[in-house]
Amino acid sequence: MIRLNNDYCYGAHERVLKAIADINGKAYPGYGLDECCQAASEAIKSACKTPEADIHFLTGGTQTNLTVISSALRPYQSALCASTGHINVHETGAIENCGFKVVGLSSIDGKITAAQVDEAAEEYENSDIPEHITEPKLVYISFPTELGTLYSKKELTEISLACKKHNLYLYIDGARLSYGLAGENNDVSIEDIASLSDVFFIGGTKCGLLFGEAVVITNPQLKPFFRHYVKQKGAMLAKGWLLGIQFYEMFKDGLYFETGKNAVNLALRLKEAFRKKGIQLSADSPTNQQFVIMKDSDLEKLSKNYVYEYNRRIDQSNSEVRFCTSWATKDEEIEKLIKDIEEL
Amino acid sequence: MIRLNNDYCYGAHERVLKAIADINGKAYPGYGLDECCQAASEAIKSACKTPEADIHFLTGGTQTNLTVISSALRPYQSALCASTGHINVHETGAIENCGFKVVGLSSIDGKITAAQVDEAAEEYENSDIPEHITEPKLVYISFPTELGTLYSKKELTEISLACKKHNLYLYIDGARLSYGLAGENNDVSIEDIASLSDVFFIGGTKCGLLFGEAVVITNPQLKPFFRHYVKQKGAMLAKGWLLGIQFYEMFKDGLYFETGKNAVNLALRLKEAFRKKGIQLSADSPTNQQFVIMKDSDLEKLSKNYVYEYNRRIDQSNSEVRFCTSWATKDEEIEKLIKDIEEL
Amino acid sequence: MIRLNNDYCYGAHERVLKAIADINGKAYPGYGLDECCQAASEAIKSACKTPEADIHFLTGGTQTNLTVISSALRPYQSALCASTGHINVHETGAIENCGFKVVGLSSIDGKITAAQVDEAAEEYENSDIPEHITEPKLVYISFPTELGTLYSKKELTEISLACKKHNLYLYIDGARLSYGLAGENNDVSIEDIASLSDVFFIGGTKCGLLFGEAVVITNPQLKPFFRHYVKQKGAMLAKGWLLGIQFYEMFKDGLYFETGKNAVNLALRLKEAFRKKGIQLSADSPTNQQFVIMKDSDLEKLSKNYVYEYNRRIDQSNSEVRFCTSWATKDEEIEKLIKDIEEL
Amino acid sequence: MIRLNNDYCYGAHERVLKAIADINGKAYPGYGLDECCQAASEAIKSACKTPEADIHFLTGGTQTNLTVISSALRPYQSALCASTGHINVHETGAIENCGFKVVGLSSIDGKITAAQVDEAAEEYENSDIPEHITEPKLVYISFPTELGTLYSKKELTEISLACKKHNLYLYIDGARLSYGLAGENNDVSIEDIASLSDVFFIGGTKCGLLFGEAVVITNPQLKPFFRHYVKQKGAMLAKGWLLGIQFYEMFKDGLYFETGKNAVNLALRLKEAFRKKGIQLSADSPTNQQFVIMKDSDLEKLSKNYVYEYNRRIDQSNSEVRFCTSWATKDEEIEKLIKDIEEL
Repeated sequence: MIRLNNDYCYGAHERVLKAIADINGKAYPGYGLDECCQAASEAIKSACKTPEADIHFLTGGTQTNLTVISSALRPYQSALCASTGHINVHETGAIENCGFKVVGLSSIDGKITAAQVDEAAEEYENSDIPEHITEPKLVYISFPTELGTLYSKKELTEISLACKKHNLYLYIDGARLSYGLAGENNDVSIEDIASLSDVFFIGGTKCGLLFGEAVVITNPQLKPFFRHYVKQKGAMLAKGWLLGIQFYEMFKDGLYFETGKNAVNLALRLKEAFRKKGIQLSADSPTNQQFVIMKDSDLEKLSKNYVYEYNRRIDQSNSEVRFCTSWATKDEEIEKLIKDIEEL
Repeated sequence: MIRLNNDYCYGAHERVLKAIADINGKAYPGYGLDECCQAASEAIKSACKTPEADIHFLTGGTQTNLTVISSALRPYQSALCASTGHINVHETGAIENCGFKVVGLSSIDGKITAAQVDEAAEEYENSDIPEHITEPKLVYISFPTELGTLYSKKELTEISLACKKHNLYLYIDGARLSYGLAGENNDVSIEDIASLSDVFFIGGTKCGLLFGEAVVITNPQLKPFFRHYVKQKGAMLAKGWLLGIQFYEMFKDGLYFETGKNAVNLALRLKEAFRKKGIQLSADSPTNQQFVIMKDSDLEKLSKNYVYEYNRRIDQSNSEVRFCTSWATKDEEIEKLIKDIEEL
Repeated sequence: MIRLNNDYCYGAHERVLKAIADINGKAYPGYGLDECCQAASEAIKSACKTPEADIHFLTGGTQTNLTVISSALRPYQSALCASTGHINVHETGAIENCGFKVVGLSSIDGKITAAQVDEAAEEYENSDIPEHITEPKLVYISFPTELGTLYSKKELTEISLACKKHNLYLYIDGARLSYGLAGENNDVSIEDIASLSDVFFIGGTKCGLLFGEAVVITNPQLKPFFRHYVKQKGAMLAKGWLLGIQFYEMFKDGLYFETGKNAVNLALRLKEAFRKKGIQLSADSPTNQQFVIMKDSDLEKLSKNYVYEYNRRIDQSNSEVRFCTSWATKDEEIEKLIKDIEEL
Repeated sequence: MIRLNNDYCYGAHERVLKAIADINGKAYPGYGLDECCQAASEAIKSACKTPEADIHFLTGGTQTNLTVISSALRPYQSALCASTGHINVHETGAIENCGFKVVGLSSIDGKITAAQVDEAAEEYENSDIPEHITEPKLVYISFPTELGTLYSKKELTEISLACKKHNLYLYIDGARLSYGLAGENNDVSIEDIASLSDVFFIGGTKCGLLFGEAVVITNPQLKPFFRHYVKQKGAMLAKGWLLGIQFYEMFKDGLYFETGKNAVNLALRLKEAFRKKGIQLSADSPTNQQFVIMKDSDLEKLSKNYVYEYNRRIDQSNSEVRFCTSWATKDEEIEKLIKDIEEL
């Protein structure tokens, strides 16, 4: 059985696992105040070219989103995102549970535009009774988005400028950052992500770590007391060095970027196979997630050897599903699948 | 200057004010545990034909909404409402601040349908990963809606049945209930409101009281500990009898319904005048709020003698505004306005 | 039956009620943006000698406490108060429900000391792991306290200096402020209250209004967006002028201070009668609340003509109760009670 | 340098680490719905003799506490604990941030009594105005406590009975459970913990795992929707099998209990050495944490070779510190320390 249903079904890249094992007998200070976290921070700041950034290591994506947003907003402020944004639809109302309104902006490809940010901000700014509505204060976007799509550097720059213009924070969820950076025709670098946002996170869980997300805070306003939020939200790992050592291994020589490339290359070959076969892509994704609409009968055939993620029923005989590659996907797995698609 | 911008710009109906003055020298137990609240409860239960209901008196609409919804939901549950619903757009994120997601359903006339409730509930029920999304547990509707429109008895019954089918609470915001019940062609009675919902509130602030909303809880599951929520949310008026005496005065002989009728009659005459003049109604409202799209030049003329509420710009020379009658509006005020409209 | 169980069992001072009635036929802008609130603000600022203060009018004490504290604190910060403080024991966990820890400091007379503030602040400042504990950021005290006691000007100044030294806000709950200012041997003026605190509120509900508390914000850091919090917490009265007109009536010529004096004079006469009779005072209160420990048999006798508040059982035959005067208490009521005490 | 400052300064027991490595190449379903979690659940249920229990695996202690308590309480309810309880003093107000009051009961040895539970519950039950105070609904205790002390089976049974009598949940924080069960003269078994509580957690982070706590829910009322809370609080690990495999390794043959014994034996030898030397124990701990009051000059000597945790200054020349053994502590480390203590 070949698992392509998501990018978090395998443990860790072998180098990452080895790094953990190598320091298992060593004692460290707790709560992320150790030399592994320090080294990982330096490696990340170097990759991002943000020597002044604050780096924090958390365990998972929802946890990171709720911690970052709680630290950035005051209760009367709200977060803007695509209606399909992860915080809006797949986190059990975590942000609202922290007291903040999430405003979903309409989107067809998982992306929002600078114009939408402008509009939402101006609606508030122009209101006669601002105290009756929430103040949009943070824009949440994902790179790549939940549909696998990417913002161009131009789009990202425009959103960043719109945020600056209206005094909003731009927060980028990079749960799949390695796959985004490796995306086909992508012109956005990790330095761009860092310089255009106020805070973002580098995904580890889906990108080769056992677990872990690295928060990069560049806006000085967002730095103070962040560790208080981390602790209060139950997000401070006692043995923080486990996060540090994994990220250090990934960033010390660029392994993070390598693993992303392999996964995306495999996904694009798969995409090409779907195209050739005339199977409809429901999103034009240049990254590791490929969403297709297929006949149920074809899906049944594939399901004997492959695990995909079922998304939704399209009509009586067609469904939308996701095939997802990852750092762990092997060439031969995709080759076999391509052959099987050709033979459908 | 004739104020028609809203229905809460005057004090109280003279009978209500007199009732307060009449008992000013009398001492009462605090926090709503007094004979005025008791008498008002009885009068309301009698009007609603719900002898088993629990009645609570609160001070304002946002306060009532956040208290009722906080008491009805657990943190992983969400409230469904029209995208235009008051809790979604005009309460500064009060419900989210209490920890709950508000899901706005698309709506053009301020109303939602039973089919939308079904769809939202079924999306949750059919989810493979329900723990990743919120459970829709409460439907919030307004009668009348924020656009002045009304649900028919058939529509309301269907929504009520959809709620029962999916085990959701139906909560009706009756901030303008007196005007809804008096609406043109309305076939919904206060008894219908009571029997079709699990909890609703009878608006006082906009319907002739100095302030006050009466919560009517018919579903036994929602009754326990409600006073704890009221106190915790800062919504328990020390001198609760002030609320009781006002509602008693309004319900002891049907004054509440009378005042609604007068206001709606005046609004409908105004509506007819707009129609005759060819002024576009932006919502077909059978109640006390009339939304029209007018030339800015005409609005400027009217603004010399009338206060209306400015809603939004339609285009370079037209705007949407609201004219609102109330229990306090006088015949001669509307007659004068009608004449002025005719002469535009 | 003479009600002395609390200071909120009667409606409003006749002048206050008349003021409301006088403007009942007049229309006003909503939400506190009216000329009555404006006039009341000016009168209060003049009394407090704080021309730069922001004044907001809310409905009740718990509501005011939770709104002020929510606006002042960030989630990782806590409020310090006496263990007997109203927010700690009589508001159903309202502050915690807003997300903030309340730290109760030990107290026997309802008061805390500057030394206690220092100690709590220094514990945090000296912590090696501050992110594991909450940052004390606000000191809540009541003037008078829940036991009727008062801070001297020296004590208040010391607490204020301790707060400044450690960068904490000092918030004074003045639910019974008129009785505190009129307290026996009190050397604290309303100007002192205003200048020594960062924010405080002037109680109306217990001091002659139908309802209402006036928040006075002097610290500029606490001013921005306060109306957003008021709205979000459901604390913004639609007909805000009802609050404004009441406070204006009380402050335009010093009625607020007069009513306090009468109540305290009566309470002190009652206290003297208890003393003469050898009845134990359980707190040495110079204000309108008198706590005494009496034989149950004596209480039974008094209960025929008087309502007092039962606090707690002391032993098999003695109980602690509260007798409370107010702006509404009449000379002859206290004279009668004194006679009855003498005859016990 | 020998680290004895805490019990979470080393990675994982070698068998635990090997178990993770062994399955690194295997793919699993996400979010704890995998066979490793299943096997671990069965092993834990077997050890606890609770075939009907629900088991959930979370990442850390604060996270577990806030998730369990959020799922158990409604907003008007509170949690009782020792004033020294971890949720009261070392979690940055996490429980309050979830909206719940924590009531700290006075304690000198980190323990509370059934009588204290009775008293707090009865104060609420007997209140005339219960809606003005929070309802105590959950008792939080730690086994061992934060001071290393243990409840006897009799004490635990009495607290459990008091909870049942007053309809409170008993929740036991077992962050150091392995050390508690191995405590000197301990007569409480893991089956007792399971049968006397409504919910408890088995600590992993401090007891030989890389990270992880296993929540055991025995009370059926607490089972529904628990996964919703876990997800909403950001506590659902994507690769849940990492938790499952670690707990399985620990429970499949009793390794969890073995590691606890070793640590406690070493701690007791250390305790004996302190006693012999006349060094004051500030808590009489039968478990792996030993709190002592030592001369600063002696501490300075020890600090050259040992890391201990500094707790607080006692006087000018004495301090309280903690020495902590763990599953990772080696015999020779303690032997060396004992020798050095003897030579002080």
